[in-house]
Amino acid sequence: MSVERDIKLDLNRGSRIGLDEAIFCEGKSAAHLDRILSEANERGARFLLTRLSPALHQSLDARHREGLDYDALSRTAIHGDPHPADGHPEIVVLTAGTSDIPVSREAARTLHYYGVPVKEISDVGVAGLWRLLERVEELRSAPVVIAVAGMDAALPTVVGGLTPAVIIGVPTSVGYGVATGGETALRAMLASCSAGLMVMNIDNGFGAACAALRVLRALRNHA
Amino acid sequence: MSVERDIKLDLNRGSRIGLDEAIFCEGKSAAHLDRILSEANERGARFLLTRLSPALHQSLDARHREGLDYDALSRTAIHGDPHPADGHPEIVVLTAGTSDIPVSREAARTLHYYGVPVKEISDVGVAGLWRLLERVEELRSAPVVIAVAGMDAALPTVVGGLTPAVIIGVPTSVGYGVATGGETALRAMLASCSAGLMVMNIDNGFGAACAALRVLRALRNHA
Amino acid sequence: MSVERDIKLDLNRGSRIGLDEAIFCEGKSAAHLDRILSEANERGARFLLTRLSPALHQSLDARHREGLDYDALSRTAIHGDPHPADGHPEIVVLTAGTSDIPVSREAARTLHYYGVPVKEISDVGVAGLWRLLERVEELRSAPVVIAVAGMDAALPTVVGGLTPAVIIGVPTSVGYGVATGGETALRAMLASCSAGLMVMNIDNGFGAACAALRVLRALRNHA
Amino acid sequence: MSVERDIKLDLNRGSRIGLDEAIFCEGKSAAHLDRILSEANERGARFLLTRLSPALHQSLDARHREGLDYDALSRTAIHGDPHPADGHPEIVVLTAGTSDIPVSREAARTLHYYGVPVKEISDVGVAGLWRLLERVEELRSAPVVIAVAGMDAALPTVVGGLTPAVIIGVPTSVGYGVATGGETALRAMLASCSAGLMVMNIDNGFGAACAALRVLRALRNHA
Amino acid sequence: MSVERDIKLDLNRGSRIGLDEAIFCEGKSAAHLDRILSEANERGARFLLTRLSPALHQSLDARHREGLDYDALSRTAIHGDPHPADGHPEIVVLTAGTSDIPVSREAARTLHYYGVPVKEISDVGVAGLWRLLERVEELRSAPVVIAVAGMDAALPTVVGGLTPAVIIGVPTSVGYGVATGGETALRAMLASCSAGLMVMNIDNGFGAACAALRVLRALRNHA
Amino acid sequence: MSVERDIKLDLNRGSRIGLDEAIFCEGKSAAHLDRILSEANERGARFLLTRLSPALHQSLDARHREGLDYDALSRTAIHGDPHPADGHPEIVVLTAGTSDIPVSREAARTLHYYGVPVKEISDVGVAGLWRLLERVEELRSAPVVIAVAGMDAALPTVVGGLTPAVIIGVPTSVGYGVATGGETALRAMLASCSAGLMVMNIDNGFGAACAALRVLRALRNHA
Amino acid sequence: MSVERDIKLDLNRGSRIGLDEAIFCEGKSAAHLDRILSEANERGARFLLTRLSPALHQSLDARHREGLDYDALSRTAIHGDPHPADGHPEIVVLTAGTSDIPVSREAARTLHYYGVPVKEISDVGVAGLWRLLERVEELRSAPVVIAVAGMDAALPTVVGGLTPAVIIGVPTSVGYGVATGGETALRAMLASCSAGLMVMNIDNGFGAACAALRVLRALRNHA
Amino acid sequence: MSVERDIKLDLNRGSRIGLDEAIFCEGKSAAHLDRILSEANERGARFLLTRLSPALHQSLDARHREGLDYDALSRTAIHGDPHPADGHPEIVVLTAGTSDIPVSREAARTLHYYGVPVKEISDVGVAGLWRLLERVEELRSAPVVIAVAGMDAALPTVVGGLTPAVIIGVPTSVGYGVATGGETALRAMLASCSAGLMVMNIDNGFGAACAALRVLRALRNHA
Repeated sequence: MSVERDIKLDLNRGSRIGLDEAIFCEGKSAAHLDRILSEANERGARFLLTRLSPALHQSLDARHREGLDYDALSRTAIHGDPHPADGHPEIVVLTAGTSDIPVSREAARTLHYYGVPVKEISDVGVAGLWRLLERVEELRSAPVVIAVAGMDAALPTVVGGLTPAVIIGVPTSVGYGVATGGETALRAMLASCSAGLMVMNIDNGFGAACAALRVLRALRNHA
Repeated sequence: MSVERDIKLDLNRGSRIGLDEAIFCEGKSAAHLDRILSEANERGARFLLTRLSPALHQSLDARHREGLDYDALSRTAIHGDPHPADGHPEIVVLTAGTSDIPVSREAARTLHYYGVPVKEISDVGVAGLWRLLERVEELRSAPVVIAVAGMDAALPTVVGGLTPAVIIGVPTSVGYGVATGGETALRAMLASCSAGLMVMNIDNGFGAACAALRVLRALRNHA
Repeated sequence: MSVERDIKLDLNRGSRIGLDEAIFCEGKSAAHLDRILSEANERGARFLLTRLSPALHQSLDARHREGLDYDALSRTAIHGDPHPADGHPEIVVLTAGTSDIPVSREAARTLHYYGVPVKEISDVGVAGLWRLLERVEELRSAPVVIAVAGMDAALPTVVGGLTPAVIIGVPTSVGYGVATGGETALRAMLASCSAGLMVMNIDNGFGAACAALRVLRALRNHA
Repeated sequence: MSVERDIKLDLNRGSRIGLDEAIFCEGKSAAHLDRILSEANERGARFLLTRLSPALHQSLDARHREGLDYDALSRTAIHGDPHPADGHPEIVVLTAGTSDIPVSREAARTLHYYGVPVKEISDVGVAGLWRLLERVEELRSAPVVIAVAGMDAALPTVVGGLTPAVIIGVPTSVGYGVATGGETALRAMLASCSAGLMVMNIDNGFGAACAALRVLRALRNHA
Repeated sequence: MSVERDIKLDLNRGSRIGLDEAIFCEGKSAAHLDRILSEANERGARFLLTRLSPALHQSLDARHREGLDYDALSRTAIHGDPHPADGHPEIVVLTAGTSDIPVSREAARTLHYYGVPVKEISDVGVAGLWRLLERVEELRSAPVVIAVAGMDAALPTVVGGLTPAVIIGVPTSVGYGVATGGETALRAMLASCSAGLMVMNIDNGFGAACAALRVLRALRNHA
Repeated sequence: MSVERDIKLDLNRGSRIGLDEAIFCEGKSAAHLDRILSEANERGARFLLTRLSPALHQSLDARHREGLDYDALSRTAIHGDPHPADGHPEIVVLTAGTSDIPVSREAARTLHYYGVPVKEISDVGVAGLWRLLERVEELRSAPVVIAVAGMDAALPTVVGGLTPAVIIGVPTSVGYGVATGGETALRAMLASCSAGLMVMNIDNGFGAACAALRVLRALRNHA
Repeated sequence: MSVERDIKLDLNRGSRIGLDEAIFCEGKSAAHLDRILSEANERGARFLLTRLSPALHQSLDARHREGLDYDALSRTAIHGDPHPADGHPEIVVLTAGTSDIPVSREAARTLHYYGVPVKEISDVGVAGLWRLLERVEELRSAPVVIAVAGMDAALPTVVGGLTPAVIIGVPTSVGYGVATGGETALRAMLASCSAGLMVMNIDNGFGAACAALRVLRALRNHA
Repeated sequence: MSVERDIKLDLNRGSRIGLDEAIFCEGKSAAHLDRILSEANERGARFLLTRLSPALHQSLDARHREGLDYDALSRTAIHGDPHPADGHPEIVVLTAGTSDIPVSREAARTLHYYGVPVKEISDVGVAGLWRLLERVEELRSAPVVIAVAGMDAALPTVVGGLTPAVIIGVPTSVGYGVATGGETALRAMLASCSAGLMVMNIDNGFGAACAALRVLRALRNHA
């Protein structure tokens, strides 16, 4: 058999679409990740790792672990220095409940990696409406709001009526019974009556941050 | 073949569970309904007919049509006089959008049949939050709120945080794409973070009214 | 990054909708729960904890464990004294099979926390009809019946025809094959021919109790 | 192209598995059916036609229509004389609601075609339990009970606990919302707690009768 | 709280529907099962236990374990002596693949408990047709054939055309991808073109045996 | 009954979130729409109507029809003059196949209503890759690309790797078999490997345009 | 708005992947098709049209209709002369039931368009096994067998064990209840135990023929 | 009970359909596999084992382990010598992402077992299009391309437009949220606009190789 080597890093992708290659760690072995990190070290590259569980992080080669800024809650690690801050406006990341924070933190960490300032506002689900209403002014100052919610995911619908900003909904897999796995939250966001709400895959905080970066890039290039 | 007659009216059911027999008309032929109405006329019984489409209503025997108070929007008809008003407190029926009104009106008409006063408040979906917030005091005065909503069905979640009343959610089949058929609205209500929200089958305004009647009955018998 | 603190207890919610904040423990770490309990202790607050698994309970700080009345079967814990008994009528909680008891007990424990008397009647599924029929008189004396059932969930349909009470159906995730996860039980309850049956999310005994409390509150305020 | 003739009647199948070929008419054109009936007439064969809608029946060749005993409610037609009665015990066919009768009648007509006596008992759904309980003795006298029900399909579960007979459940597509299409009824029957309940495809009254015939054949051959 | 005792054995059910109470062990604790077995021992009752995993079996009280005839493959245990053999004809239990044997063995063990002779024929899936065709004569001699199959579950369709016997299809959860969980096998059996095939819940070998017993009872009572 | 009037136009919504109220016509009667248009005429308001089928458009009052700029392909109508062009950069709207054009045209018409220039590029599905590759430069010049696709919806995945722009995916209900209703296209877009792709409900061209407007608003306010 | 012309025929695609462009007519208007046919006529191109319903065919411009070889059963039309026969081996197309013939005929007509000889063998579903077994020799002589089946789709599983040929399974939407829409047939084929069975979308006879053509092309180029 | 032995190896199947029996190990115990391997050793047979996890491999009898060529990544083992190379053309196996390699390697190993040369080309998903475009010439030289992809599975659609080869799509269960389990990838492949793409069950690399072998056999027998 002629067998292809099983890793092909796309290191110059950044120049094409403005986003660095990120390493999705779920399902990869420690050995596989160690090989990727070795290659990266040689090139001095800057990387974001997502879905890196504490157990997998622990089983990486110690030298590689040292080079990583790891956050267990969001399961993200940053290799190398984040991109320099560069005058981007602040993005707001909202969560409906405290159980949604691992996902919102993944979005916040990804933005941080790209040098974008973030304000996280947590536990403002609309079953207790005043929690959100107290924060409306903060919401309205951001060009992009990422709204992270599980269960019935009613938060982005209400937010969409309170600000003209770009709203990116991220459903989470939080919940039990019909909420299990996040399908209900996903569908509720897609069916939202709030015009112009855009939706990501379940638990995809990373993707929401990339979407926000595409908006910030448009701000820079087309304003 | 020994064949059973195909209709068995349960006319003394009212005395057992406090609800009259209602005739669900969908899927029944005009001839079948005419037979039921003839039997009912002989006994002088009072009836509610639900899911009676305008076309089916038109094809009923003219004498039977005369005896019916028909409402095309909710597809309900009342045969005989409604139950006398009897001092029940007013029930509030909310709808998120104007397309949900056929379902909320079915609930209102059913309550009207049982002599219960109703206040309908329409088009207060939470994508435009101020529409609901202007009506909060009216909401709070009712022992039972029926909240009817399609699409992402975020309305009852917000309502549940604004009033200590009994909240009965009725998802509707309004919408397109992932909202088609009402499954998303149903699941969003069941997954709601608002504690104690109870849910009916999709488009089941009649059932919501029966549930409200069970509450009113409890008020009378157990207070 | 400006990061929001990740817990915001809504301690005065009770005054608004008549229900205390409850802590849903599934997916929370012991450290996270310990922080919540510390805050609560300072304020002397009374709390209900739900979905607290024996393992998670064991890993809480010993001082916090001491302050909890823990029940492993229902995975509930009560922090502080329950609300005083206050003359509420007795609520009946039914289960179809013995495997449904963890869910019915969650409902019973929640009602107990709020000072409401409860009668549990177990293992009265309608595949052996006489088991239910022997208990009809007890059923009929309650203003609210919570019917907990998995598999085909036929119990609340039969109960709805035997009593004029408020009926709250709670489907459970008990079973295998098509019953796995409780979706069949949920849909059977929603499709029930028993008029006015209201339905909760799968395994949501806590929510059923909150719904019953909303009814009892209506009894008190609107009778 | 070498093209196969598009009809191949399996006329000697009866001798192999004890069931005649039946013609499923849904989706067939009148011309196609006329060709089948012509062939059949030539051989003098006896046939059952199922799912023959009134419109399709009307558009058949008049000579063929004359030879058919047609029943619009069950959409069945019998060509030729039914099999002679042959001392089979009476089968009971139950329906939960009057809307389920088209399906139960299809079962009854199929049994009639095979010379088997049938007793139909209609509208005995368990939301009004006394309707079924009044008929228990009749139920218990049959070797096979076919229980036809839509919505939550609780009927066969209760029946299974009342008789030691063979119970064949037939879910129907009757209902709206979550009951649409009969999937809920089907799954509720499959998940039933009544031991030994066997289930057919949705609306498959014909299949239920064939299953009953297999039982009767076993009675004759293995007793 | 007035709490119901959580076990109610239905010990005289046998006389009503001809089937003993069986204990479904999945989800029950060893302590719970030990209490049930103690009660049973006192009464000298005969029992079948299903879904008793090797681990759960090992953790039962040693005295109870001694009284059980345990089979790990089918996860069944028999407490007390099986019913005496009583002249029933032999039932055939087929499996499509060797991975389906745990389910077919559950059916065989249940029949054995009731004193019914069984012939198991394994690994006769129709992707290798000759394996089944070699066994046709054995098939044809049984009044009831239980056909157990996962994946695409084509076996009972073919069997239904080879014998006039009662055919009971049991889908299994064997397989991966679209076969995962057995839903495909279940639906293929329900959609089968073989007239009169009856279907059980996924992996329900026990139920299939109970269904066969209902047929044998009919043989005895109605022949 | 105290009945609420069934229409509440939210005419000052534009000032809050920067989007005018649009009238979703599906499921509304001609009479209902005529009342809305009468009210609108009095106020001289500018409106967009969506999902206005040719048949419904034809049945509107002739005076109202005159005031509408109607496009049958996209089922949109514009009442009053579009917003003035205001220097916005051009948005690109792509479609995979010609059957997707009704949805892309809805997006284009909505943008046109808001004075935004649009370039539509049709029939560039990636099963014929060169069709898209010939247009890459045009793609790259836009700040926002709306990619409309049914079936397997592979188009936006490829586009996301070719431009740093904001990518808004709109799945369509075009197709048969597993593509029916658009669920496959929706899920494929949500699962896309292209980082930062945002997704709308099936067939929601209007929503995609609103999302693009939120981006353009951000460009104006935050650049 | 700069609007793209809405048709882009890919006329030189044949040279790239060996398949001509085909026109999928479902959802296209007669006017749209007439424009396509006009363009085609000018170029003298040869075309296949699929999913052309009799009604749509009737409403085409008469001059275009004349140029089409139309087959109503398969809803296909051939414009221009078929490709010349070119010595390809004969392909076998099987159907399980007569209702599956519209789909198998679509495959046969597509092959005919490409000059490939076809043998259709119909109504050989495996619930009557001997019908298939009589044709085994014919099956075995073909390099490719297309097996078309709805309901439980057991046919290709059995065929896969009878011939070493390439087997292409095409599920059909034929059937009712759980068979509705063809999802059960599709999943049964995908889960088949017959090694190497390949599957197409539901009702996709055209695609199956294209797949067969890819095999024939490989035969020519790589033998 | 008369119990069938639970293993029936179909050792002469090779002569019938040109494929050896393979042992699917998932769900089998080590003891069961050891018995199979003992039997095989006696006959000197050559075997492929699939889905043999490292843990299960480790727990096999040491003597059997020695005789196996085991590959942990693809979970395959080869017992005996592979079939001799026999002049077959090279098959290309593509993967979209590195996480899909376990499945593509299963296909490659199966082909290797049958003496077929394979070229694996990995990590060429179309979100980074140039990765695939660089390899087009290699693609075009193969008679059969197996395209393995998870998530949105857009790869085979693009490949189908680049080569006239036989394309076999294998969806993988790689991914999270809506991609979980591979259902989205499966459906996207089935709905593909690339004419003639054939699809296997999720993760079924073995089946794809068998399908390719059927093509190679046709090449040999019918060219």
